[in-house]
Amino acid sequence: MSAADVVELLRAQLGDRVDTDPIALEATRADKSGHASPGAPLAIVHAQSVDDVQATLRIAHATATPVVTRGAGTGLAGGANAGPGELVLSLARMDRVLEIRADDLLAVVEPGILNARLNELLAEHGVWWAPDPASREISTVGGNIATGAGGLLCAKYGVVRDAVLGVDIVLADGRLLRLGHRSVKGVTGLDLTSLVIGSEGILGVIVGATLKLRRLVPGQSQTLTAVFPDVRAAAVAAAAVTASGIQPAIMELMDALSLEAVHRLLKLAPPRPDAAQLTIQTDGVAAEAEADAIATVLRDLGGEVAVAADAADAERLWSIRRSMHPAMESLGTTLIEDVSVPRSMLPEMFDAIARIEAAYGIRIPTVCHAGDGNLHPNFVFEGDVVPPRIWEAADELFHAALRLGGTLTGEHGIGVLKRRWLADELGDDQWELQRQIARVFDPAGILNPGKVFAP
Amino acid sequence: MSAADVVELLRAQLGDRVDTDPIALEATRADKSGHASPGAPLAIVHAQSVDDVQATLRIAHATATPVVTRGAGTGLAGGANAGPGELVLSLARMDRVLEIRADDLLAVVEPGILNARLNELLAEHGVWWAPDPASREISTVGGNIATGAGGLLCAKYGVVRDAVLGVDIVLADGRLLRLGHRSVKGVTGLDLTSLVIGSEGILGVIVGATLKLRRLVPGQSQTLTAVFPDVRAAAVAAAAVTASGIQPAIMELMDALSLEAVHRLLKLAPPRPDAAQLTIQTDGVAAEAEADAIATVLRDLGGEVAVAADAADAERLWSIRRSMHPAMESLGTTLIEDVSVPRSMLPEMFDAIARIEAAYGIRIPTVCHAGDGNLHPNFVFEGDVVPPRIWEAADELFHAALRLGGTLTGEHGIGVLKRRWLADELGDDQWELQRQIARVFDPAGILNPGKVFAP
Repeated sequence: MSAADVVELLRAQLGDRVDTDPIALEATRADKSGHASPGAPLAIVHAQSVDDVQATLRIAHATATPVVTRGAGTGLAGGANAGPGELVLSLARMDRVLEIRADDLLAVVEPGILNARLNELLAEHGVWWAPDPASREISTVGGNIATGAGGLLCAKYGVVRDAVLGVDIVLADGRLLRLGHRSVKGVTGLDLTSLVIGSEGILGVIVGATLKLRRLVPGQSQTLTAVFPDVRAAAVAAAAVTASGIQPAIMELMDALSLEAVHRLLKLAPPRPDAAQLTIQTDGVAAEAEADAIATVLRDLGGEVAVAADAADAERLWSIRRSMHPAMESLGTTLIEDVSVPRSMLPEMFDAIARIEAAYGIRIPTVCHAGDGNLHPNFVFEGDVVPPRIWEAADELFHAALRLGGTLTGEHGIGVLKRRWLADELGDDQWELQRQIARVFDPAGILNPGKVFAP
Repeated sequence: MSAADVVELLRAQLGDRVDTDPIALEATRADKSGHASPGAPLAIVHAQSVDDVQATLRIAHATATPVVTRGAGTGLAGGANAGPGELVLSLARMDRVLEIRADDLLAVVEPGILNARLNELLAEHGVWWAPDPASREISTVGGNIATGAGGLLCAKYGVVRDAVLGVDIVLADGRLLRLGHRSVKGVTGLDLTSLVIGSEGILGVIVGATLKLRRLVPGQSQTLTAVFPDVRAAAVAAAAVTASGIQPAIMELMDALSLEAVHRLLKLAPPRPDAAQLTIQTDGVAAEAEADAIATVLRDLGGEVAVAADAADAERLWSIRRSMHPAMESLGTTLIEDVSVPRSMLPEMFDAIARIEAAYGIRIPTVCHAGDGNLHPNFVFEGDVVPPRIWEAADELFHAALRLGGTLTGEHGIGVLKRRWLADELGDDQWELQRQIARVFDPAGILNPGKVFAP
């Protein structure tokens, strides 16, 4: 069947929810990774209901048309990039909050609701959903679940799989399955909810989720920064905070290059050469005592500590960390990497980054969720395509993380950009097993083909 | 190949780790559910290493011999019961703690370590592993993971899937796979670690686990009890505590029949007729303030509150809850059920239990982890085999829980005892999908056959 026939079939059932506007199609070729597919897809379906999703998949299944599910397109691994011959299933319009139950600490949502918008609505009920990717203002809850997107608060408040009780998915053939439960506990059969979390669109289309909520944290959060002579000293200090047993809500590390770039962008006085910085937030009823205890740990290790006097001062300190992405964009095209290591291995991981910089004659500005050991080294280059030499350096980075007991990707996923390293972490046997499991969900292989598993 | 030949093959490789002592074999027919298989298995392999497990599975695979993995045999759903023609793979001797890293909040263990023993060792490092099934003194960590065993602390400290970073499994054909990671975050491919948690021995044999630890909770815990005129009032009060936003570490509910039976066993003065009781523990630096706030909620709802004066007094109050199982055993044979509902539905679930009691002319003593909505209704009967009429009443119980948005099993699993209800909760499509996933791991179907999925 021709592409035109497929679009005709879709139009007959879904009317003007089928979009073939060239500009709209072009926009679905890329996500926020910058990586783009070789060409535009054949159409976008703007689903407004579960029925729309089922109708779309039935047609796609019957016509063997590949389907790329897309939320807000804020991914960083190319997982939602759509290419020639593919159909984009956009869930952005399925953005309702169906139920908020503060008494049961759960909410039922459609996938297209933005993370920050959901949390605004939840706050009125005294509750929140913990996953907080840096993209939270612009990324969808469905996308957060599909990629297992983490964030800054994970060490204290958990990762996505700790925050989802159930998901509704539509299978490749259009059948609807309800996975998981509404109760705190539930061990009926295999935990397919967890399997779908982070599955990047290859198992099914997430059309609804039952989220596990938390009470808003009482008390006034505290913010402090500590400047260290170099990044290794900052990493040692971050590991020491974790080892001390005090649990910050957020602990972010910026290396010298990141700090310099941000200071330049914000027109601040340049930081001391080589200086690296930790920015830390404590929260809850013991926030002040914990901030004091952390300050002591940091000073003992040679840190120059500054404690925010008030909320405005804290906001000023956090704006430096938040300006990292714009600062990188000001330098060139950026490949944002995402390795994660056990927290005690942070200093060794920064050593490895320094070795790679020296070996390749490049600089790798790096920020790090130091509270949980997740690093974002940034490879900066000219042009649209990652040069082979940068991929070689990234390859060394991935293997260094694996040797330290870490992982290729803490929170961004595999998508297209990391699929060639997937078997390096999983091993060939597990890689093949995972592929077979995906085939059980989608025997014809129409869901996000070529993503996660290299073809 | 005859059973004798299989045992010969095993002996040739594993020597005296192969056990055919009739008394030992007889003991593997049942777990703590009381339910027993129709007869004794052919042998037990007491594995002492991953190599032993791999060797056993290679032989089992080559000879198409079914394998039942067993830890301490404390399950409550018959999942580890072994029968005629089956081989028991015991992991009880693989009980080493391989690594404790307080700085990374992780431990690497063999599966046979007892939960309580592990926590003794961890305490020396200032850390603990949160899953706390009532069986924690006698159950293994591997078994806790294989069944997704919960406990009393889940509402505040999470369920098993929140507390495991990775598992090593041996597949049915003897291959070893390392699933998961050592870092806090990690989203490389599908989350097979979560899939193995609660999979009850049908996907592979768990031979190692990387556990996510917590710091020991500072401060002195506080205990209080509240007596209510009837179980509904106690359930309403428990739901009100949850809804108030104060998070107890433990909140247990005992209905009148449970309370009477325990008081009789412990030779305490009989409780008031129909009276039901909540026993609550708060912990952390705010334990006292939280206990006070909870006491206010409970008194406002008509509860007679008693606060433990000291640790010895608290211990006395908790001994009543902990005597529930012996008290039930004093009444007859017990089928311990395990439904779970959203916490706001606790009063409705107790109404349903009262209706079932009336309809069947039976009494159903019930205790409840009221903090997380997990109920353990006890069906008491004479003899070894659950009478059909009791199963009919249990059937009504399960469907009542499902109607309230709950689940068949909060923490015990499906095993053999609940497999005929599995599709009622999952739906036929999901049941079939789960079965196909199990077949990907174990195409020949030799791992714990007949468990979870009805044959």
